[in-house]
Amino acid sequence: MIFVLKPGHTEQDLQHLIDRITEVGLTPHVSRGEERTIVGAIGDERKLIDLPVETLPGIEKVVPILKPYKVVSRDFKKEDSIVKIGSVPIGGRKIQVIAGPCAVEGIDILREIAGEVKALGATVLRGGAFKPRTSPYSFQGLGEEGLKYLAAVREETGLPVVTELMNIRHTDLVDKYADAVQIGARNMQNFDLLKEVGKLKKPIILKRGMSATILELLMSAEYIASEGNTDIILCERGIRTFETETRNTLDINAVPVLKGLTHLPIVVDPSHATGRWELVTPTALAGIAAGADGILVEVHTDPEKAVSDGNQSLKPKKFAEMMERVRKVAEAVGRTA
Amino acid sequence: MIFVLKPGHTEQDLQHLIDRITEVGLTPHVSRGEERTIVGAIGDERKLIDLPVETLPGIEKVVPILKPYKVVSRDFKKEDSIVKIGSVPIGGRKIQVIAGPCAVEGIDILREIAGEVKALGATVLRGGAFKPRTSPYSFQGLGEEGLKYLAAVREETGLPVVTELMNIRHTDLVDKYADAVQIGARNMQNFDLLKEVGKLKKPIILKRGMSATILELLMSAEYIASEGNTDIILCERGIRTFETETRNTLDINAVPVLKGLTHLPIVVDPSHATGRWELVTPTALAGIAAGADGILVEVHTDPEKAVSDGNQSLKPKKFAEMMERVRKVAEAVGRTA
Amino acid sequence: MIFVLKPGHTEQDLQHLIDRITEVGLTPHVSRGEERTIVGAIGDERKLIDLPVETLPGIEKVVPILKPYKVVSRDFKKEDSIVKIGSVPIGGRKIQVIAGPCAVEGIDILREIAGEVKALGATVLRGGAFKPRTSPYSFQGLGEEGLKYLAAVREETGLPVVTELMNIRHTDLVDKYADAVQIGARNMQNFDLLKEVGKLKKPIILKRGMSATILELLMSAEYIASEGNTDIILCERGIRTFETETRNTLDINAVPVLKGLTHLPIVVDPSHATGRWELVTPTALAGIAAGADGILVEVHTDPEKAVSDGNQSLKPKKFAEMMERVRKVAEAVGRTA
Amino acid sequence: MIFVLKPGHTEQDLQHLIDRITEVGLTPHVSRGEERTIVGAIGDERKLIDLPVETLPGIEKVVPILKPYKVVSRDFKKEDSIVKIGSVPIGGRKIQVIAGPCAVEGIDILREIAGEVKALGATVLRGGAFKPRTSPYSFQGLGEEGLKYLAAVREETGLPVVTELMNIRHTDLVDKYADAVQIGARNMQNFDLLKEVGKLKKPIILKRGMSATILELLMSAEYIASEGNTDIILCERGIRTFETETRNTLDINAVPVLKGLTHLPIVVDPSHATGRWELVTPTALAGIAAGADGILVEVHTDPEKAVSDGNQSLKPKKFAEMMERVRKVAEAVGRTA
Repeated sequence: MIFVLKPGHTEQDLQHLIDRITEVGLTPHVSRGEERTIVGAIGDERKLIDLPVETLPGIEKVVPILKPYKVVSRDFKKEDSIVKIGSVPIGGRKIQVIAGPCAVEGIDILREIAGEVKALGATVLRGGAFKPRTSPYSFQGLGEEGLKYLAAVREETGLPVVTELMNIRHTDLVDKYADAVQIGARNMQNFDLLKEVGKLKKPIILKRGMSATILELLMSAEYIASEGNTDIILCERGIRTFETETRNTLDINAVPVLKGLTHLPIVVDPSHATGRWELVTPTALAGIAAGADGILVEVHTDPEKAVSDGNQSLKPKKFAEMMERVRKVAEAVGRTA
Repeated sequence: MIFVLKPGHTEQDLQHLIDRITEVGLTPHVSRGEERTIVGAIGDERKLIDLPVETLPGIEKVVPILKPYKVVSRDFKKEDSIVKIGSVPIGGRKIQVIAGPCAVEGIDILREIAGEVKALGATVLRGGAFKPRTSPYSFQGLGEEGLKYLAAVREETGLPVVTELMNIRHTDLVDKYADAVQIGARNMQNFDLLKEVGKLKKPIILKRGMSATILELLMSAEYIASEGNTDIILCERGIRTFETETRNTLDINAVPVLKGLTHLPIVVDPSHATGRWELVTPTALAGIAAGADGILVEVHTDPEKAVSDGNQSLKPKKFAEMMERVRKVAEAVGRTA
Repeated sequence: MIFVLKPGHTEQDLQHLIDRITEVGLTPHVSRGEERTIVGAIGDERKLIDLPVETLPGIEKVVPILKPYKVVSRDFKKEDSIVKIGSVPIGGRKIQVIAGPCAVEGIDILREIAGEVKALGATVLRGGAFKPRTSPYSFQGLGEEGLKYLAAVREETGLPVVTELMNIRHTDLVDKYADAVQIGARNMQNFDLLKEVGKLKKPIILKRGMSATILELLMSAEYIASEGNTDIILCERGIRTFETETRNTLDINAVPVLKGLTHLPIVVDPSHATGRWELVTPTALAGIAAGADGILVEVHTDPEKAVSDGNQSLKPKKFAEMMERVRKVAEAVGRTA
Repeated sequence: MIFVLKPGHTEQDLQHLIDRITEVGLTPHVSRGEERTIVGAIGDERKLIDLPVETLPGIEKVVPILKPYKVVSRDFKKEDSIVKIGSVPIGGRKIQVIAGPCAVEGIDILREIAGEVKALGATVLRGGAFKPRTSPYSFQGLGEEGLKYLAAVREETGLPVVTELMNIRHTDLVDKYADAVQIGARNMQNFDLLKEVGKLKKPIILKRGMSATILELLMSAEYIASEGNTDIILCERGIRTFETETRNTLDINAVPVLKGLTHLPIVVDPSHATGRWELVTPTALAGIAAGADGILVEVHTDPEKAVSDGNQSLKPKKFAEMMERVRKVAEAVGRTA
């Protein structure tokens, strides 16, 4: 950590800072420049993280040097991690396509959609049994019944299933039925929920919050990892910006940035990132071209009647076209799909 | 709800839309213009909210007419609501100042801070026993012990206490000790938590999420209200923007906008909205000038040693200066403090 | 245009609105619903655009129906436009790569860079003679001398050249030397400059402002087109968001959105959109996968000594690798490069 | 400037960095920590600003220490600057109110509005003769005729006048008629225009760009100052965020932040910052409470018929109410109005 002192600071301010650095077991290193005095704190700066160091007298600026996350960083582990959902490896050469309806609406429709996406090449089935809805008056999901349908369709199709966990009280329930647990964007900083899934022996898909920085996403992954579960898949699903033509803005830059900072696999969700079905294929292709390890996409056989997110769901015919194009772009970047 | 059809839509598209509108019990109203055909759906459009109407063939744009929230709206209740924390009314003529440390750190320090803020005019004590921290390695709060300290200090000072609830499993615990329950910005869309506190018989301070729109804040308030608890105080605490000089950007516009849209009282948190103690007083004054019913401010007798948010905490001396200025501005806008 | 009246509006308010609509030559169309009265203004609503219609008494909301741009819209022209820079068509099957240094620094270095990028497949040369710099103390460009170097290198290599115009007084000068004129992000709403280049007989590359919406970008293109010049190439170069890991956030969604709204060709600038050379290739590939017609990329043979934007410039070796990958992805999406 | 080297950098990388720092005349200062090596460059780091230092091999992070602006900074001049528009001092104890129509529409209406605002306490008249409009089809201003009307009304009322300059070619014209020149938000980074007005002997009102950081605003002020004109008034007029209830978000934090960083006076524009007349008074009061030296507000005697921005214009009656409240809040913060 580096401390820049204000011009005109007193010697007492400087000594006070030196004392504080020394107290926590770090070594101060003073450098007096023409316009500013700078003090480095040498050692494990994480000891300083909780201290309100900017409040010390005479301080102009404090610059952290180390990254505040550890286990999930590339420094910690050089090679790419591969996380398995059931037997499906996310993060290897093959781009995996996780597809299904936004919400589980019934056993028949789920079976129908699962059959379609499997036939077209999806390797994991998604579907929400608990739905985070902006309005209390909207459909909130089928709950355990929905989980049972997912499990039943897994038996029939062999597709492992991913579903969202929103409520800490449902952890055991979701753990019982799902092959991977999704933490939604709105819960990315629900820290108790993160700790809870950090204790599971199951892969976690952690979606980036709609206004979370890349650093905050990694800190939330660190929460999960710090409890022992490092089977984490990060998901870029669009961030909130001033643009109103689309529901969110897919932060495509985040894909290569994350590849540099962490060893964890990364998937892209073009359905939420755009909010409009006709934009799903081009942005899915962009995600793969940028280096994503998979895509998470909403598919529905009758979007017009979907109880949630129908506007952004692909029909099987469009999904088929997308898959064909996904395969070509995957090959173009040296992968398969 | 109004539907704008694409130029070149078919008669079949139009008929299909009319059928869908009729099916849910609304009345379609077609108007053919020179460049666009427009269809209004007359009746309670909330019936259409869950339907993916944009996905219907031939639709260019869908415009909702009604507000999706009800109980918390000004349409529902014309006069301002007054919500009491203990015996302290929030929303009346008097501007209330809720002050205290970011986190409860110990009984002695809490007692000391509470004594100071009470003497200087604060009427409610704040302090976190459960802390939402970005890093899993940061201090996470004292838990129930912290709640006990809050209760003890309430007994001693007579100040009602506000504390944050993050984990649905701690609801009873927090309910047992606190006079008002705070839902933090990161949990503004933790819908299960909202439903839970909607069942309490206790006022809720609902903080705006850092990238939540005003509409979403009101929808989250509606979640609480829809469970029966309408004792809700909204809190503007800064939103996330591109600006990096401050931790967040206080959305001062939100104060009069909310006053127009809802009958609920509104408080402003200048500590989180700026992240720097020297900006707290000017923005607190701005909040009051703009019409806020109270302010929520972090105070610490030794910010340098605070375990959390010391950089944005006022020392008692600065808090005293702020209070003096708060009183003057309150009077200038026809209120007291 | 649709007007939603407030609940409780008077009959006089309604009549007043009807009068105003009629006055400008449109036809009012009243529809009384259960909760709201709605009035449509039928006809060319552009007549209402300049009127402060929201200020009329009793109005709750005003919803425009038509797009405010005309000449640049898909409605106006269905098929894709192809814009030629010199003899290089932008918008056809071939993805064009516009490459070169950020700033023209000297004839030798420009010649060297131009030689490299041409050999590797770039078809247009870029380079700034007038540089928009945040600091008045930074290098501001070589001015006319730089333009002469660009023209000289064009003679030698046959590559047409693109350069930025910032100052209306330099229009003739830039027009004299350049094959295409770039309007930079900071000038996207410099309306006088837009009108000026609208009178040129030369293609314009219009870069999206860093906080401009897609609609505003199209309105700025309309400014140019309204003066008679429809040879416009739109450029997505990243928008400003809260994320700080990258200089800007490439709005990849904008590519397919723009393809739907306008017939103009679209290029992507991965250098400015990321600000870091190691992110240029993945985001360039993403742009092509999403449907862009070309990319605009900064290349320097000695980025360490570049006077501007060296951090985001590719060395020829990296540019060669990018070109190889660009070709593969272009083919995967049915194009060439 | 501080350089943090990557873990695993080579000794050659370090030596190369040291050489580069030495070359530009600064002194390198190496500090080897447990996890990172850090190099400080001691001396005037502005020498490094134009160099792409992040591109040097082995560099993880570069941290500037000094502020890149000079003349406009508090370090350069400790006491508040007072800038006079005509004989009206901006930045002193008195809060000045600059009021008038968005656009000059005609001599009679201008005279009428000027009479009203003067009678109610405004001390400077505003009005645009050249209007930056999003659409080429909107009213673009009366041009020189409008300037003449402003000058005529100044003669009659004694109010000095402020008007916007958009086009470098109109500099002499605007200089001839106006008492202060406004640079609009869209031109905040039109650097040639800034240099031009930097040569005038007339105060400049520099409006913050809608996505400009506080740092960029100060750099643009520095552009003007670097040409010799330090009579600059900064204007906070709202920034672009994700919120859609208001046209912009007034960044109230910016007022005290700017007061700390610069000696220049600061005014707030509540009309553009909100876009809705009913929000103008509360946000104007907030601006004053936060420490602004004045407000810039749109007033129109018949907003319904205003050719521009009628939705955000106050009628004289509302303006009178605002002025009364402005005076009270000004007094509450130890000023007059």
